Amino acid sequence: MAGKVFFSVTMSLDGFIAPASLGELMGKQWMELQQWVFPQRFFRENLGLGEGGEEGRDNDIVRATFDRTGASVMGKRMFEGGEHAWPEDPPFHTPVFVVTHEKRDPWERLGGTTFHFVNDGIGTALERAREAAGDRDVRIAGGGATIVEYLNAGLVDEFSIALSPVLFGAGIRLFEGVDAGRVALEQVRAEHSPKVTHLTYAVRNR
Amino acid sequence: MAGKVFFSVTMSLDGFIAPASLGELMGKQWMELQQWVFPQRFFRENLGLGEGGEEGRDNDIVRATFDRTGASVMGKRMFEGGEHAWPEDPPFHTPVFVVTHEKRDPWERLGGTTFHFVNDGIGTALERAREAAGDRDVRIAGGGATIVEYLNAGLVDEFSIALSPVLFGAGIRLFEGVDAGRVALEQVRAEHSPKVTHLTYAVRNR
Repeated sequence: MAGKVFFSVTMSLDGFIAPASLGELMGKQWMELQQWVFPQRFFRENLGLGEGGEEGRDNDIVRATFDRTGASVMGKRMFEGGEHAWPEDPPFHTPVFVVTHEKRDPWERLGGTTFHFVNDGIGTALERAREAAGDRDVRIAGGGATIVEYLNAGLVDEFSIALSPVLFGAGIRLFEGVDAGRVALEQVRAEHSPKVTHLTYAVRNR
Repeated sequence: MAGKVFFSVTMSLDGFIAPASLGELMGKQWMELQQWVFPQRFFRENLGLGEGGEEGRDNDIVRATFDRTGASVMGKRMFEGGEHAWPEDPPFHTPVFVVTHEKRDPWERLGGTTFHFVNDGIGTALERAREAAGDRDVRIAGGGATIVEYLNAGLVDEFSIALSPVLFGAGIRLFEGVDAGRVALEQVRAEHSPKVTHLTYAVRNR
């Protein structure tokens, strides 16, 4: 029984998931966007930031997202952004399939994360991720352009958004370029924590 | 005791509140965006569409938004869009202050709606609306550009968004041009109905 294909991101109320650049305001906004996740115990321990942290519903959600994920897929830009920033023991702990034109041998890291470089498109990357994930789910990790490619191709089953109470005004939009004539949504769940609103949608093709 | 200044709109998950034009896809999306509100009993009766309708939490929210509103403010484009579309008995039933350069006498309609045309800016329009509203609240009715003008001027106390499970891909964005360096938000409430997620935020100046 194959798992689901999903993505899970934190989005500003005006639809952004990342700053376009890292100016002063943008750095501050980025911290505000993500502020709900930094104190969570699971997030801290998984990134090796230390023991302890919050253990409420937000923490459960971060942990559940990790636990369901048997493999991840990411775009080249997200990989390049993280390559030198992730610790030696990156927070995935599963195979990660990077959609790229770069030909490169698998890059094995500590803690069970191995990056595989896939040169023949998003379909193949997803197939390989599904195989690696077994009966767990495949997470389209990002960035925004890769998520929208999978959405527009009808390959995403559902997604979760942590909607942060912050306005960006500019930056990288989650749904930039989405094919609204093709992608229909169904509300599955909404849950409010003091810091953020967790929204889950199922994707239906029109 | 003066009331609050608020706005309340229905927004697509990707941040749009209206189509840019009324093409075929856009007409369909617009109906999907607003589909949660059409069957509500209060909405139907208030627009004179007939008796009966749904009476759950969505209906209560539509009614509460109407009941709290002692006066509305709107931009010239929203007024011009509605002028020939609203019934003789428009759905406001309070004074409405239109921010415009057009000099025009007050336009009194059936059912207690009178449009007043204010020629000296958003500050004056709001002052007049506050006076007219007494201890009830002032609603910035729209459109998007007018809402953002009030937000950026620090004149909005709180707002509600009915977040619809639909993607627009293009159109008029609610927060286009928002001054993210000035406007900070605080989550107040999130409530899920089967059709839409109702989100409420308080506005704080940075």
